[in-house]
Formats: sequence, structure tokens, C-alpha cells
Amino acid sequence: MLTCTNKYAGADKRGTIYGLYSISEQIGVSPWYFWADSPPQKHTSIYAQPVTVVQKSPSVKYRGIFLNDEAPGLTGYINAKFPDSPWGPGYNAEFYSTVFELLLRLRANYLWPAMWNSMFNVDDPRNQPLADEYGIVMGTSHTEPMMRSTKEWSVFGNGTWSWETNNETIYPFFVEGAERAAPYESVVTMGMRGYHDTPIGPTNDIALLEAIVEAQSEILADIWGAEAASDPDVVPQMWCLYKEVQGYIDAGMEIPEHITLLWADDNFGNIRRLPRGNETERSGGAGVYYHFDYVGDPRSYKWINTAKLQKTWEQMHMAYERNAREIWVVNVGDLKPLELPISHMMDLAYDITLWNKDSVPTWLRHWASREFGASVAAETAALMNNYTKTVGRRKYELTDINTYNIINYEEADRVLATWKGMAETAATIYEGLPDETRAAFFEMVYHPVTAGFVFHDIMISTAKNNLYALQGRNSANALADHVREQFDRDHELTAEYNSMLNGKWEHIMDQTHIGYNYWQQPMRQRLPGLQYVQTKERALTGDMGVTSESSNATVPGDDPYHDNGSNSLTLPVFDTYGASSRWIEIFCVGTQDFDWNITANASFVSFSQSAGSLSPSGQTDIRVYITFDWEQVEEGSGMVLLNVSSSTDYGAQFNMPQLMLPYTHHVVPSGFGGGHVESDRHLSIEAEHWTSTTNSSSAHYEVITGLSRTLSGVTLFPITAPSFTTTNAPGLTYDFYTFSSSTFTNLTNITVVLTPNLNTIPDRPLRYAIQLDDQDIKTVQPIIDQPNGANPTNWGTAVANNAWLGMSNFTYAGAGEHTLKLWALEPGLVFNSIWVDLGGIKPSYLGPPESVVV
Amino acid sequence: MLTCTNKYAGADKRGTIYGLYSISEQIGVSPWYFWADSPPQKHTSIYAQPVTVVQKSPSVKYRGIFLNDEAPGLTGYINAKFPDSPWGPGYNAEFYSTVFELLLRLRANYLWPAMWNSMFNVDDPRNQPLADEYGIVMGTSHTEPMMRSTKEWSVFGNGTWSWETNNETIYPFFVEGAERAAPYESVVTMGMRGYHDTPIGPTNDIALLEAIVEAQSEILADIWGAEAASDPDVVPQMWCLYKEVQGYIDAGMEIPEHITLLWADDNFGNIRRLPRGNETERSGGAGVYYHFDYVGDPRSYKWINTAKLQKTWEQMHMAYERNAREIWVVNVGDLKPLELPISHMMDLAYDITLWNKDSVPTWLRHWASREFGASVAAETAALMNNYTKTVGRRKYELTDINTYNIINYEEADRVLATWKGMAETAATIYEGLPDETRAAFFEMVYHPVTAGFVFHDIMISTAKNNLYALQGRNSANALADHVREQFDRDHELTAEYNSMLNGKWEHIMDQTHIGYNYWQQPMRQRLPGLQYVQTKERALTGDMGVTSESSNATVPGDDPYHDNGSNSLTLPVFDTYGASSRWIEIFCVGTQDFDWNITANASFVSFSQSAGSLSPSGQTDIRVYITFDWEQVEEGSGMVLLNVSSSTDYGAQFNMPQLMLPYTHHVVPSGFGGGHVESDRHLSIEAEHWTSTTNSSSAHYEVITGLSRTLSGVTLFPITAPSFTTTNAPGLTYDFYTFSSSTFTNLTNITVVLTPNLNTIPDRPLRYAIQLDDQDIKTVQPIIDQPNGANPTNWGTAVANNAWLGMSNFTYAGAGEHTLKLWALEPGLVFNSIWVDLGGIKPSYLGPPESVVV
Repeated sequence: MLTCTNKYAGADKRGTIYGLYSISEQIGVSPWYFWADSPPQKHTSIYAQPVTVVQKSPSVKYRGIFLNDEAPGLTGYINAKFPDSPWGPGYNAEFYSTVFELLLRLRANYLWPAMWNSMFNVDDPRNQPLADEYGIVMGTSHTEPMMRSTKEWSVFGNGTWSWETNNETIYPFFVEGAERAAPYESVVTMGMRGYHDTPIGPTNDIALLEAIVEAQSEILADIWGAEAASDPDVVPQMWCLYKEVQGYIDAGMEIPEHITLLWADDNFGNIRRLPRGNETERSGGAGVYYHFDYVGDPRSYKWINTAKLQKTWEQMHMAYERNAREIWVVNVGDLKPLELPISHMMDLAYDITLWNKDSVPTWLRHWASREFGASVAAETAALMNNYTKTVGRRKYELTDINTYNIINYEEADRVLATWKGMAETAATIYEGLPDETRAAFFEMVYHPVTAGFVFHDIMISTAKNNLYALQGRNSANALADHVREQFDRDHELTAEYNSMLNGKWEHIMDQTHIGYNYWQQPMRQRLPGLQYVQTKERALTGDMGVTSESSNATVPGDDPYHDNGSNSLTLPVFDTYGASSRWIEIFCVGTQDFDWNITANASFVSFSQSAGSLSPSGQTDIRVYITFDWEQVEEGSGMVLLNVSSSTDYGAQFNMPQLMLPYTHHVVPSGFGGGHVESDRHLSIEAEHWTSTTNSSSAHYEVITGLSRTLSGVTLFPITAPSFTTTNAPGLTYDFYTFSSSTFTNLTNITVVLTPNLNTIPDRPLRYAIQLDDQDIKTVQPIIDQPNGANPTNWGTAVANNAWLGMSNFTYAGAGEHTLKLWALEPGLVFNSIWVDLGGIKPSYLGPPESVVV
Repeated sequence: MLTCTNKYAGADKRGTIYGLYSISEQIGVSPWYFWADSPPQKHTSIYAQPVTVVQKSPSVKYRGIFLNDEAPGLTGYINAKFPDSPWGPGYNAEFYSTVFELLLRLRANYLWPAMWNSMFNVDDPRNQPLADEYGIVMGTSHTEPMMRSTKEWSVFGNGTWSWETNNETIYPFFVEGAERAAPYESVVTMGMRGYHDTPIGPTNDIALLEAIVEAQSEILADIWGAEAASDPDVVPQMWCLYKEVQGYIDAGMEIPEHITLLWADDNFGNIRRLPRGNETERSGGAGVYYHFDYVGDPRSYKWINTAKLQKTWEQMHMAYERNAREIWVVNVGDLKPLELPISHMMDLAYDITLWNKDSVPTWLRHWASREFGASVAAETAALMNNYTKTVGRRKYELTDINTYNIINYEEADRVLATWKGMAETAATIYEGLPDETRAAFFEMVYHPVTAGFVFHDIMISTAKNNLYALQGRNSANALADHVREQFDRDHELTAEYNSMLNGKWEHIMDQTHIGYNYWQQPMRQRLPGLQYVQTKERALTGDMGVTSESSNATVPGDDPYHDNGSNSLTLPVFDTYGASSRWIEIFCVGTQDFDWNITANASFVSFSQSAGSLSPSGQTDIRVYITFDWEQVEEGSGMVLLNVSSSTDYGAQFNMPQLMLPYTHHVVPSGFGGGHVESDRHLSIEAEHWTSTTNSSSAHYEVITGLSRTLSGVTLFPITAPSFTTTNAPGLTYDFYTFSSSTFTNLTNITVVLTPNLNTIPDRPLRYAIQLDDQDIKTVQPIIDQPNGANPTNWGTAVANNAWLGMSNFTYAGAGEHTLKLWALEPGLVFNSIWVDLGGIKPSYLGPPESVVV
């Protein structure tokens, strides 16, 4: 039994509460014991050391969440599970009490309540007093001024939501909101947008906004006294610079300095602006409105967690260092199933000094230990570290059958294998868990990992189905059936979640996620198109088809008399420093079993299998890997011919397919070392694999593992460093060796992949400098800002891809040793990888696998 | 028993043969007794009248077919069914003897043999002597000069097929061809193209071609004597002006006048050029190379018959009248299943004077009576007249899921109903036939009609599947299953054809036809993409969805808080002179049964059904037609509100759908009569429904029923009429009445639909004049020719659509009476229909249904 004496009392009531809940957590009660069913860890004895623990002030003053876009999941859940309030089912006090407790146990203190179709103060009048009793500071969302919800205007308001034409009605509406909030702790949203989260007008009407803020200030002064209009401690006020609203401040709008400027991300986790210059000295300070869930362009993301923890750290570290420490509020959608990123964000907000750039694995171990017990913490943390990196490549809602390339670099195969491996790991851990831990693990680990695997299997297998149907493969139909099975598996996972624990989480997983074709969620789950071939008839070309990597063709293929050479197919060049093999596939396109045989006209060629049988009723497809015994291959280039024969005849006028495999056997001179080597007319270099680096007294490069789609981010520390020029910037040098002999100029031949960070300082846009060999240094500004608070050019593509691509043209002077230099000219710019295209880069999402380093 | 005496002897051996076969046909033996299994009609007695019948000379001297693009169907069939020749399976004399006899029974005399992968003279040395014995005049295709097949060069030739670099080798190759042909009747192909049906070079090298023809003439003179170079009767020669070759003559190339100019169609049945000026006086005359089957751009058509008989008549009538009477040769692909258009073409070629513009139904009755007996002739002829018109709308190979509109004008529904009705008629006739007639009927009627229905069902049902999946309908899945069943039905029809009569027609129907995605045939049958919805989960919007015509939306639809008004849907305007009803559809998007109810806020509204039940396990969809009692509706415009309720609740935040049906009740003034009346902001007028017409002494308008996609063609007769101006051209006047009050200018508001005829006289391109009310007359030239023998601009779209669209902009002055005038300025231009767009024309393939005439 633990006795709390008042020596644990805090600086305010929350200090005490946090102290209590910290002890509760140390005893073994997760903040998520209710919301994610984390089992209290049982101990035979509990010991408290006789020491006084003093918590310093939290890193961020107001730390909280925004329940938003809360249907179908949360609303459906609440209507089903909180029906018994005297105020009817819905967002009532019974529900909110669970949220308040969760927030406090997470050491948060701030909440924007659900507002899509609800009114926090009206739906249940107990809500606001209860929040205050718990010690939760209430706000309203960025688009709801003066502590009134949007829906209140549609229920109680009269006329148009337009200050210009209807301020006589809106003014008392504001007054009522302020009066209602007066007894409680609140952060008041100032300013005004159009009705329902839209711009107030087509242009930046600064005079109008200033008039609105003046009227609002007048109201606050009437209620809280004149000091409310200058002292942020009397009644905290904030103005959220969301979307187009940011344009007002950039256009010079004067905002009283006691009002906290709440800077926003771009809805995709990239903070758009942070305090600069004298903005850092405002008495109201600054904050950040961030998103783990979003409804809107280019696409909503509302299903399961897609937040990358490394990204959260990188952005919030920047926000903190740039003095946005007054408010951090994050849009968490339905609350569940975003337990992981919410925990992480609130821990950062409470004390960011505990967590450095490499802290995610450590944080995940702490988290996993707390939620599932120490025995599975390490493997669960590793799994979720992999999940957060993998899901960070692209949001589910933006991933479709065209995302990952199914013919080049085995990209889709590798991506799917990663997901499959994670799902298997999750299943293994899950099966070994004690019963009481299973629910929590299912909700926070097993479900997202498994559902993510199923989702990616549906997309990638559908892509293959479509290609295989084009190729006439029998297996197209089996793949279609597989996709439909996985579609049902997706449903089963949803149903299992909704029905677990005797239906505790009914409806919470109702969010549709398959079938997106524009920004809005699909109203019903819908598979992408599946194609079936007529397996009762054989292809015109016979029973056997052959294809190769990097091709969508089948040989024998198109009518040889009208498309010359279509019985032959050329593979990508095979060389010493590239992929360790090339592959072809042999498959059934007919009705009969057949034996196949593959021969090469060179003795140094080996096959993973050189003969076999395929059958429409058995194994229908085989991938054959081709390898060379390079020691037997003379230096230089050549061509190997591969003949693939079938034991059944071909269709009328079609001949035996022949594959041509061009190869080059080059050897890097012994004098070259420590750099990357060309293969297949390209280089792919991870930014962290530099040959050398130079630092300056004011900044140096650091690697943030897991920040990119493929490996890591390389960026300048400290984030508050000044701008640099090419003469004083820290530099990165990459040596590489090429064999391609042709020279060319003015191609977009060097692509630098960057994390999708934005220009947070308007007059210091992110830039880098780049130089190939001793050519002129070029400066690249990948992100071109737009006026009126609009997102930058091509922003939609960048956030979808989770990458900006910086393109540069250099002259390629031919084979030999080369040196590429990069200089980040601003902190905040994060290098991921570099692709040097000598004419051989093929389409893919993640780029070619990294080149060999010798 | 019939005795043939020599008084039946003809002018040459073929005259006698035709006499004999004519009697055979009169006795009851179809030319197709072998090739289409038409049963000889049995008579207890046969009577011959004691009269002398003298056949006049045939209309066209050389009348024949070209076996081409002959795999997989014909080649597969021949390899299977003619394997026993001493020369091996293939295009041997056993096979050709059946073709020769067919030709003679069709009163044809000319053949271009198969050449994709065969050599008529080499594969079986008996072929050529046998042809001569039968009296068949042999040719080689347009691309095979000097009586040698393309493949012969690959087997016997040396070096490149290039006159410029290799004429020393090609010359003797030509000599051998001519010498080999010398003992027999032949028409020698002159000139030269590139290897395998390609252009000889990138530009019109007239000097090169003239040198080639000179050398070829020298060879012919060496063998047949000097007169061969001037007298077409010594050895007939032809030069085929196919594709780019036409550019040579247009560019001024001199071709000796004894060489027959074989003008070609555009591979899609539209003759590109015909003799003009002094070309009509050449001693070698002219001919036409025509297509019923084609491999190439914009798309191959190789499956079942898509030739429209009315079109064949119209084009060949023009050719005949324009003096192209020396050769008619038609590419017939695999021969089968083009029995119908081949018969028709050969009858026209033998005596076109028997068949006028309205002759198709009569010809079809004769044909049906001969093939299937008199008792089913009328209904079979009517069926095939419908088939030839319907299939003439667009070739199968070019028809996909986007062709017919599934939401506007009930277009796809009407098209599919036509096909279904035809298939039912074919089945009814088929079932009533005696056993011996069934095979022929299956091959020539039942199969094309039924396979055509199945094909269109697959495309239209897939289109609906895709839309219904987007709308979240349960029935999307049932449609997908239906499409897969019809895919199997398509296979069964193929298999039935290939296996009938103990496998007589093995492989003949092997041609793939589902899965086209570019010009080339798909190598395997492949369905378009089918989409499945997750019927185990209900839509976010609830169990019931509602949509309306002209919309792809579902209400309740998108999140109402982010896409305002998405619970309501507006139908197209309903008015007095348009469609007799509007429709909506109510359907299951969920998991539960529900009762639905529809109410209107006006008493003059009726529904085909106003309440009912739908069930995921029973009836899932219903179309409800809305009609008005117009007598109860006041004149003017209004809006009816329709509420559709469901007995189960809606999804979180979704409300009951409401449909808005705007209407107008207008009355045409009693003074207006005989013209069309606007509905829904447009008019659609069939060209034959003119209000009045004026003729001139040199030409007048005639209606060719069945020539257009929708009704008929209106064109000037005679086809040899001169050019006209708007002052002397015969005119067509269309009165129409409009209600739309707005006025607008410079819209493309009048579209004239024309058959895809081409400019057959280079300096007299097809043109028409058009005038709205008293505005300036505009002249429209829809077809813009391109140089170097290329097809006209937008030709690919026009032949795919089977229509040229002439667009004009006029000022619309507002409601009231209007007059549209059209003048054809050249013969050969064929008006089909006219669309006047006052802002209301919706996407469709065939255009809006015709407007009402009062």
C-alpha cells in the first residue's frame, strides 16, 4: 500500500495528479489500461524509495489532443457503448471522463473535443465542469472561435456565418461562449474562418480579421477584465495559423502579442512555419497544431497508424528548439488506434530533453515493456520500429496497385516480404503472450502489423493479377482469388477488433480503407479491379509463356509477323557490381501440363533451376534466377542467349522464345576504395554512406536513423544553426566509380531525395548545393512556396511520396572515378539518398537498391 | 435429272461453270454447302423451263477474296483438318480445291492466297495448276509483286528486300515468279513495298518506284512479249494503292495505263480514292481492295462478322459508278465466319444492277431462303438485317466497357436489350429448325448473334459492375459473377463451334476477342477488371443507397460535413417533350434487409413502384420510373422533391436522401407543326426526318435505310453528281421548336453526324453547308486529308466510332421556332443525324434519342 503525503503536491493541481499517475505507472498501470486494455502488471511487492522526486516544468505548457473526423469509428463506438447517459448516447461525460483520465496519465493537460457533429458544452452539460474537475484545460479547434463548437452555430445561430454581414448576431454568440467558459481553464480560439473548416473568404481580408479579433478581445476584456487583452495568463488565447490563415500573418496582419500563435503542419506531419525573428519574443508564445489523422487533400488518412515516430521526433524537436513550446495539440482522429504515436508525442511534450535523435528504439522498448511486459519488450520494440519505418514510406490511403514496382528491382516483392515478415513476427509474439496481455497486443501491435500486411498484399497481388492477366498467365486467376481471400481477411481483422472482449470496441474499426479514388474515404470497402483470363482456352502462343524482370511482355508474344522480334526479350544488363542475379519467369498460359528447359550458350551461366514441369492444375509459375561465375567471365561486355523450350508445341506461327542477357564484367581499379560503384548505368547512394564529411564550428551533420523511406536522414545540427553558403557550409563528399563510357550533358541525372520538410522560415527556404567533379556548384531549392498561405508547388506529390526530389543536371564525362559533393545550406533540410542516372534508372517507388561500396 | 447441253456454254470456261453452278443453286445447293454446312434442299421433282438464259457480262471483271491474317482460325483449322496431303498439312491443294469451288459457286473468279506464313506455289506445287483447272485467276496480295509470296523471299531470297541495294538479287527473284505464273491466268501485282506489308521507305521515292515498275515491265515483256507492257489483256497487271502507296500517285507518279489501279479502302470499309479525271480512261481500268477483316491500327478486327451490308452496298455502288470495275478483291481473314458479307459482296460484283439502295432486306431474304429454307427466311432476314445494323455501330474489338453510356438515355440498357432480343430470336428460330439445317444456322446466324450478345453483355455488365462497386452496391459482386459466367458462355460458344459436326470446324473459332488494349489481338482471352465490394460490411452510409439517371453518385453519399449537399441529388430536367419518365435506383449497400418508401411533394407524380423491400440475400436493386400526369402540371418550371426512406438507420452522421427533380411543362404553340421539339436543352434529329427538301436537276436526296448507327443515311444521288454550291445544291430543311430562354454564341452547338466516308476525289473533299435561322451559312469540311497517302486527321476516331462529327457554332437567339438547313455540297457525303446542343446534351455513344416531332 502506498501512502501519498502532501510532500508530493505539485505546483498546481496537475502537478499532484501527474505525481500520482507517475507512481501508478511505475507500479505497473499503463495510461492505456482502459483505452488499449493494457493489463496492470501484478507484483507481489511494491517498493518506494524514500526520496523526493521533483518534476521540472513540462517542456510544453499545453499538451493535448484533438478528437476529430471522428466517424465512423469513434462516433459509432460511442453511440454503441455510452448510451446510458441521461443526456443520451454520444460524446457525454461518461465518455469524456475516460479521455480526461487517459490524458492525465499521459501527463497531458489539454483537449480539443470532438466537433464534427457534436457540441462539447451542449450535448452533455456535465462535460465542461468534469473537465475542469479533472484538471483538463479545454480548447476548441482552430476553426471554432470563442469556445463555441461549429455545430452550435447551426443549432443556435441565426443567419449566415459571416462577420461582414451578420456580426450583430455573431457577437452575442461569441459572448455566450466566453461567458460559459469563464469559470473554467480554457485556451480561447481567436479569429474566425468560414463555416465548417473553410477559408473565410477568397482573399486575405486583413482588415476584416483584425476587426474580428478586436471584437473578440473586447468580449474577453468584458468578462475577464482589461488585462485579458494583454496578459496571456489571465485567459490564454490562441490563433491557429492553419492552411490559408497562415497567409494573413505572412501578409502582415498584426496579432496582439499575448495571443499564442499556433503554427500548423501541412496536415501530413510537416510543420509549415515556426517563430522567426521577433515572433519568438511574443508574450503569448507559440505552439504547434499537428496531425496523426486527417480528412482532406490530397487524401484523407483515417484508418490505422501511419505516423513515423522518427519524423515526429524530428519535427517536434525543431518546434521545441524554435520556441514553439506553449501549445502542442495533435489531431488524433478516433483516438484509437493511434495509441503509439499519441504516447510518443505526449512524452516528447512533457520532457523532450529525455529523448534524443536516436531515441525511438529506446522509447519503443520502454513503451513495449509498459504495455506488454519486459519479456517481449525487445522484440516488440524492434517490430514496431520496423513498422513505423515501413508504414512511413507511404500512407495506406495513398498506396494503390501502382505504388510499388512489380517488375523492377523486385521492389514490390521486397516490400511485401517485409510486411509478411513483420506479420509473422507479430503472430509469433502474440501466440506466446499470456491471455491478459493479448488484447493490448492485438490492438497496438498485432492488428496494425497484420492489417498492414493484408492491405499491402491486396495492392501488390492485385498489381500482379493485372500484369499476369495481360501476360495471359493462368496464375492471374489464382491471384484474383487470393486477393479476394485477403479482402475477407481484412474484414475478419476488423470484425475481430470490433468484437473482441465481448464487443468492447464495437464499431471502433469501422473506418473504410480499401477503395480510395480521391481525397474522401470510400463509403464502402471496394477492391481494385481484378482481371481473369480464360483458363479453359490456351493462349494463341501455346501453353508456356516466359517473361523477365523489367518487362511486362510475354514471349512468345505478339504476332511475330507484325511485331518483329516479339519471340525474343532482352533482360537488363547484368554486371559485376549490381544485383547478384537476374531473373526470368516461366508460366502456364494454356491448358496442358508441360516440361520446360532452359539452356544458355555460355558455360559461366547458372540457373536456380534449369528444367522442370508446370501445370495448370499444379505449380503454374516459376521464377528462375540467373547467376554468373564471374571469375570465368572475361572482362568486357557480351551477350548470353537463353533458350526456353516447352514440351508442348506453340501456337500457329509462334516460335520458341529466346532471351538475350547482355552483361558487362568490369573491375574497379585497385586504387579506388571507399566509394560506390556503378551498375546498370546508375548509382544509388544512401546519404549516410558518405566518403567524407566536413563540419563547421556552427553546425555538423547527424544521421537520424529511420527518418527516410529507405534508411536514414542526414541533417545539420543544431536545428537553430544559421544559413550557410557553399564556402562555409559543412559538406558531404561521395566518391563513386563508373564504367559507362558515353558522355552526356543536360540530363536530369542527379536526384537528391529529401524528407518532405517545409520552409519554416519564409526568407530562408531550404536549399542545398551540389557539385559533380570540378563542375560549377549548383544551388537547389526544392520547395517553392506559394502566396496566401497555400502549400508549395507539387506539395501534394511530395507528401504522398514522403519525399521531395531535388533534380540537377550535370555533364557526365565518362568512365572513371567521380566525386559528388553536397552542402546543406539551411538546417531543417534532410538528405535521404542520391540517385545518379547514367541512363539506366528504371521506374520504382523507393529508387534502386543501394549500389555496392568497395 | 437435268441435262446440260452445250447451249449453256459460256463466253469462257467460267461462263459455263457459272451456268452449271447457277442451276445447282437453283436446284437447292448453296455455294456454302461445304464451308457453312448449308443443307442441299431436297425436292421430289425438279423442273427446268425450256428457255435459253443468257447471262450478261459480270459487273466486275475480277471478283474475289483474299485469305489473310489467317491465324489462329484458318491456319489452326487447316493444320488439323487437311493433314493428309503428300505435301504435309497446311495450305495445300485439298484445302484450296474447296475454296476454288466456293468461289465459282459464288460466281467469283479471283483469289489472293494466304500469305502470312505460307507460299501458295511452294507449299503444294499442285495449288497453281489446280486453280487454273478450276478456272480461278490467281493473284498475290498488294504487297507481293510478281506472283511471289512474301515468305518466298525469306526462304529463297538472299540479302535485303531493298531494290536500291539488292536489285541484282531481287530481279531474278521476280523473273522466277513471272515465269512460274506464265502458263496460268494471273493478275500480276506490280510495284514494291517494304518487307512484310510495310512502307518501302520513309518518303515517296517516285523515281525508285518507277524504276521498279520499269524493271517488272521488262520481265513481263520478256516472257509474254512486248505487248504485255501496254495491253492489259496479255497479262493483267495491277498496282495496289494501299496505305502510303496512294501517296505516290497523288504525288504525280506515272503508272503505265495498262496497269489496273487497285484503289484501297482504309481497312475499315471506307474507300479512300476512286478514279477521277483521265484516270477513268486508263486501258487497265481500276478496282477496289476492300476489307471485312483487318490486322492493324487503330485496332485489328478478326473475330466474327462486323461488316454492315448497307455500307458495302453504298461503297461498292460508288466504286462501280465511278468505274472501278476491273477488280474487286476483299480481305476475308479466315474466310469463315464471314459467309454473309462474302456472299453479298460477290453478288454485287457479279451483277450490281440487280441490287438497289434498298436491297439489303430483299437480298437477305434470298440468302436466308437459300441457306435455311423458305419457312424461316423472312424472320432470319429480319434478324440479320438487325444484326448487320447493330454490329455496324462499332466493331467488337473496339467496343469496351466505356463505349455505351450506362447512366444517360438508358443507352447501354437499350443496346443490350437489342442484343438480347436478337439472341432470343435466334434461339427460337434455331430450336424450330430441322436437324439438317441447324449447323448452317448455328454458324451463320445463331453463333454471331449469340456471341455478339454475350460479348456486349460482358462489356456493359462490367461497366455496371465498376460503377456499382463505386456506388457500394451489393449487386456489384453479382454482376462480377455474371460477367464471369458470360465469359464462360463465350468459351462454350467457341467450343461448340469448334467441336460441332464431330469437330469439322476444329480451331476455326480460336480467334481471341476479349482483352484488346491496343491494335493487336490479345494473345489470350482476358476480362476487363471486375470490382468487388465487401458485402460482409455495410457502407458507412447505412444499408440503402439511392442514385439517379445521369449520375454516378450514391446518396447518402460523401461525408455531408465535407461535401455539402451530398445527401441530395438532382435529376436531369423532366419535361413534356422528352423521355416519358425519369428514373432512380434504390439498392442494397449493406448487410441488412430494409423496406424503402418514396414520396413526392406533388400529387401529379407517380412511381412505377413507391415502396418495397430489398435484401442482400434477395432482390438487391430496383429501378423506379417517375412519371407525371402532365395535365395536372401547370405550364412553366418547378421542382419536385422526392424523399426516399429506409427502415434501417443510416450511418453515423448521414441523413435520409432527398432527390430533386426539376421539371418544365411547356406547350408548343398550335401554329408550329411538322418539326422537332426541344427537350432537356437539346434536340436530336434523324436526317431522314426533314421538314422539307429541295432537289436540283442534277441530284436529289435519297435515304439509305440502315446505313447509320441509329437509323439511316441521307445522301445525294447520283453518286456521280457534280459539286454544288449553296446556291445550287439540293437542300434539307428542319424546323424545330425550343423553349430554352438563354441565348449564347460561339458554342459548338450543332453537330452533324456523318457516315465515315472519305474524300475519294482529292480536289473535291466532302463538304456540306449549314445554316441556323437566317444567320450566315457556314461550310464544313469534316475530313482533312493528310499528305503522303496518310489517313485524314482524326481518322482513327472516326472509323472506331463509325462516324465523322461535323461541328458548327451558331448563335442561339432564344426560345421559339427555328429552322436548320443543310446542303450536301458533294455526292458521297452521307448525313446521319443532327444534334443541337442548348447546353443539355449528355455523354453517350449514339447521341440522345430522337426528339419528338409534333
